[in-house]
Amino acid sequence: MVKLLTDAEVEARPPVKAVFDDIRATRKTDFINNFWRGLANDPVLLKRTWESLKAVMTAEGALDPLVREMIYIAVSTANGCAYCVQSHTAAARARGMTEAQHAELLAVIGLAGQTNHLVTAMQIPIDPEFQI
Amino acid sequence: MVKLLTDAEVEARPPVKAVFDDIRATRKTDFINNFWRGLANDPVLLKRTWESLKAVMTAEGALDPLVREMIYIAVSTANGCAYCVQSHTAAARARGMTEAQHAELLAVIGLAGQTNHLVTAMQIPIDPEFQI
Amino acid sequence: MVKLLTDAEVEARPPVKAVFDDIRATRKTDFINNFWRGLANDPVLLKRTWESLKAVMTAEGALDPLVREMIYIAVSTANGCAYCVQSHTAAARARGMTEAQHAELLAVIGLAGQTNHLVTAMQIPIDPEFQI
Amino acid sequence: MVKLLTDAEVEARPPVKAVFDDIRATRKTDFINNFWRGLANDPVLLKRTWESLKAVMTAEGALDPLVREMIYIAVSTANGCAYCVQSHTAAARARGMTEAQHAELLAVIGLAGQTNHLVTAMQIPIDPEFQI
Amino acid sequence: MVKLLTDAEVEARPPVKAVFDDIRATRKTDFINNFWRGLANDPVLLKRTWESLKAVMTAEGALDPLVREMIYIAVSTANGCAYCVQSHTAAARARGMTEAQHAELLAVIGLAGQTNHLVTAMQIPIDPEFQI
Amino acid sequence: MVKLLTDAEVEARPPVKAVFDDIRATRKTDFINNFWRGLANDPVLLKRTWESLKAVMTAEGALDPLVREMIYIAVSTANGCAYCVQSHTAAARARGMTEAQHAELLAVIGLAGQTNHLVTAMQIPIDPEFQI
Repeated sequence: MVKLLTDAEVEARPPVKAVFDDIRATRKTDFINNFWRGLANDPVLLKRTWESLKAVMTAEGALDPLVREMIYIAVSTANGCAYCVQSHTAAARARGMTEAQHAELLAVIGLAGQTNHLVTAMQIPIDPEFQI
Repeated sequence: MVKLLTDAEVEARPPVKAVFDDIRATRKTDFINNFWRGLANDPVLLKRTWESLKAVMTAEGALDPLVREMIYIAVSTANGCAYCVQSHTAAARARGMTEAQHAELLAVIGLAGQTNHLVTAMQIPIDPEFQI
Repeated sequence: MVKLLTDAEVEARPPVKAVFDDIRATRKTDFINNFWRGLANDPVLLKRTWESLKAVMTAEGALDPLVREMIYIAVSTANGCAYCVQSHTAAARARGMTEAQHAELLAVIGLAGQTNHLVTAMQIPIDPEFQI
Repeated sequence: MVKLLTDAEVEARPPVKAVFDDIRATRKTDFINNFWRGLANDPVLLKRTWESLKAVMTAEGALDPLVREMIYIAVSTANGCAYCVQSHTAAARARGMTEAQHAELLAVIGLAGQTNHLVTAMQIPIDPEFQI
Repeated sequence: MVKLLTDAEVEARPPVKAVFDDIRATRKTDFINNFWRGLANDPVLLKRTWESLKAVMTAEGALDPLVREMIYIAVSTANGCAYCVQSHTAAARARGMTEAQHAELLAVIGLAGQTNHLVTAMQIPIDPEFQI
Repeated sequence: MVKLLTDAEVEARPPVKAVFDDIRATRKTDFINNFWRGLANDPVLLKRTWESLKAVMTAEGALDPLVREMIYIAVSTANGCAYCVQSHTAAARARGMTEAQHAELLAVIGLAGQTNHLVTAMQIPIDPEFQI
């Protein structure tokens, strides 16, 4: 739907080139996936999105980067974003997600999907104990 | 919307009572939240749902129980289930989630929400590298 | 958020009055719920929406009206529309939905919520058998 | 994304084989669709999911099995799960869904989608009459 | 999944033909996209849907038709409807949407996706100032 | 669910104070709504989110700021975020949205909700004409 910028087109646009260089350096790979090639049509949105993602997903923090990838997959599943599920499942595997961890991730996602629907269909009122 | 069973009503229904006893024993608390009191209208659904939840969220496994709670919150947020977000945020805190961990959870959820929408609006095709 | 038109305000607007009269006649009750009082701010949208709803939910057809109400509740649950779940659960009960039918409706909705999430998280490809 | 287990691989895993045998016996067909072949990576999740689905969708109950399939399609549509819509539309047809019934199912789903959005955009408060 | 009616099949069904003729006359093109060919299986639903769409999207009104297309894309993105995003992005371009306008549309959609998730995850109570 | 920081607490945290001062200066009002008071628990997320929102929603650009607000409302409605719908409807009104414009916004949102569901339920394949 949107044009995906090729490496040649990126070379011709310094603000895009600068972001792609940082993606490559941060991820230690030459591979740039289609999401960034699509966003590159708008260098400002590209830069803002990459900087947010870099800070949230890769910086030192209180959660293990693999845990962050699994949270990301969970949101993407509930939002029905196939591309996001596929790319971040690959990222999680690259960060060491085992088959057993993946299986548990799936089980939790499925359970939450079920109970979310049950709660909404029953219109359960919030317990006073949870409202603090 | 659905009736929430009181303790007296639960006492009068042995199959419900058995599940409530197991919830109390597993969680080491007398408190039973409204979700279970609503599900109790259907003892079969109550038992099946509790057994799934007990297995998925509390059994020994490859993911830390706190991580499972955070994945649960992520799905519930994307599905817009307020009750689920509130009850499982309380559960996550009870399992030791710190303010710093909660803040990172929020940041990842927000970022995923943003990029999920961008991917869908741009209709990004899946990279061959992710299709294996 | 939007103004809900009172009966006095409706009386003063003939195109709105005509729709409200038809709702009352069709449903055989004087009660008009808030959804229509909000839509009444735009008489054209009110009329188009009521005529669609009347045709789809109440006309003679291949599905029992109670089945249509349960399908409606299912969609509304997945979309997280609390008002819609509550008003159409009331409508389903008015059409004779039993506690046992409601319990099965909940069980199917919950199951679908679970398997929808599992399918999306696993990115299951469609079987050729289903593509005809 | 996940590996789909072949019949040969299933043969080599007795807990998976037992579930597949039961699916084939229950459905009276040799065909096992991809959803189960993907779930089979985790025999415990496979067994729990199949047992839930078998109980909810095929057991004797208060709702006709075809009605359950239509409710399932409604939830899957609102959740945007293409695989689920396709596989359960096939199942509904196998259970005798006519073209006229399918057309009405679509009409109700579309109407609910519309009014769900209108209610949320207008922020309609719940009528006291629905809160019992 | 549903059959898409060919021009020959449409010719043989006068109520469908009448709608297709009006679509062609209104849009000033012979091209009829697949959505209408699918809906044509149910002439009543086809007619009702086209008349709503014609009135809402093309009639004189208070919003520019291009703005209406962008609002449509926004809803379709959040609902994860790929077909809808693609067809209405094409429609918006046909109505003159520039690359700069598309880029801003994407930025607003992404931002809303992010803040919607943050609000839900934090369970922010509505300010009294917004409740009027 | 999360603590909402009071003005006194904000005064004691210079990084939060700086953002709140910029919100007040940009919006030319002393009023700070609860969303920012909740985000203020994490000064880094607060600053990043405000800077994105300020750039996307208020900077000079190709789309009128009122159009951006309406796009925002559309996404928020589809995502079922009541707080977001309410706060941005107030913002749209403050930017001059008329009742007639609001009514058309609602009509487009409702129509898109309906056709999104119909497309998904029918599994309409994308026309080659839209795939460029």
